[in-house]
Amino acid sequence: MSGHPEDSSCELPGAPSADDRRHRQFDGAAWDGVTPRVYKLGGSSVPGAAWRDVVRHTLAGGAGEPMAFQLRYFEIEPGGYSSLEKHRHVHTIIVLHGAGRVVVGREVFDVAPFDFVYVPPNVPHQFVNAGPATFGFLCPVDADRDPPQPLTGEELHELLSEPRVREVVRVAETAGSGIQDEGPETHVVMARSAAPTQSP
Amino acid sequence: MSGHPEDSSCELPGAPSADDRRHRQFDGAAWDGVTPRVYKLGGSSVPGAAWRDVVRHTLAGGAGEPMAFQLRYFEIEPGGYSSLEKHRHVHTIIVLHGAGRVVVGREVFDVAPFDFVYVPPNVPHQFVNAGPATFGFLCPVDADRDPPQPLTGEELHELLSEPRVREVVRVAETAGSGIQDEGPETHVVMARSAAPTQSP
Repeated sequence: MSGHPEDSSCELPGAPSADDRRHRQFDGAAWDGVTPRVYKLGGSSVPGAAWRDVVRHTLAGGAGEPMAFQLRYFEIEPGGYSSLEKHRHVHTIIVLHGAGRVVVGREVFDVAPFDFVYVPPNVPHQFVNAGPATFGFLCPVDADRDPPQPLTGEELHELLSEPRVREVVRVAETAGSGIQDEGPETHVVMARSAAPTQSP
Repeated sequence: MSGHPEDSSCELPGAPSADDRRHRQFDGAAWDGVTPRVYKLGGSSVPGAAWRDVVRHTLAGGAGEPMAFQLRYFEIEPGGYSSLEKHRHVHTIIVLHGAGRVVVGREVFDVAPFDFVYVPPNVPHQFVNAGPATFGFLCPVDADRDPPQPLTGEELHELLSEPRVREVVRVAETAGSGIQDEGPETHVVMARSAAPTQSP
């Protein structure tokens, strides 16, 4: 374990709250006093490290609160996706808004509010907006966790041998991934057939 | 710390999932394979230990998953409330449904979807349904946590000296609290003026 990977790895520092208020109203887009931050900074050119149009709201656990987890909320805009990655720590998510597709190993789930997804240790995963609206989900996570790892070429090849995964997963093919993918003008995104559509 | 207080104290054991599915669809009332459980069992006759019409859904962390927290969802029916209690571990909640009032020390918050509330260590707190619909909220919590404690008489007196708290908080006055409050026929509930109404 390496503490908060945001502090030492490819993600930005958490967004410590600027105040100690105990109630944060949701105004339809954000919470009182919680500043949305960029999802992560890059540092890798490995396929799968790319991501697009993702922001993070850290609701708790980023400002020294005595708790073993952090409570984050992620928003992925239409056309956006998180990086394809793996790590020892598990993920749990609860969808709050929109429609998404979630790749968990060789499975793909269509998700809607308030669906739950569990990502076991070391299983490659990716969150993809699958609709015309913002895809938003809560993601509480262990405070003490290992940093995300990109997939090896072999793992990626194995994953893409599954037709449903190949259809959904987003992997930028060019160098420069690991920072925000600027879209098809600068990166070839595989599986274009899985472009955002309204979720069934 | 004493591990999972449900295992050693006043709460029922968690609801381990009967399967290892990674996606649990929400059907409007519950999640695939997650059985709602009674909130807790009693064991105290101290005022404040009473509760009414609360169920718990344990979504993750109750079946041996390698994670430092549990992800639970609570539902409180109209007229219902959780026990008034305190403990060292913090609470974070995100409202998913309905209207509630949350007592956090000497403050009272009116909450709606998707409001966030943080309860700091050792601060007395209570969750009260404040509307005609089910009040539902997510409550991720440290897996390793101390058991809830009722308030001392002095703490209760101090808390009730705050008019807004006195108006909202529910404290059964008779013996037998600590188990499910069967309603006004069997327990005198203070602050009846705070009976469920539609939240503003």
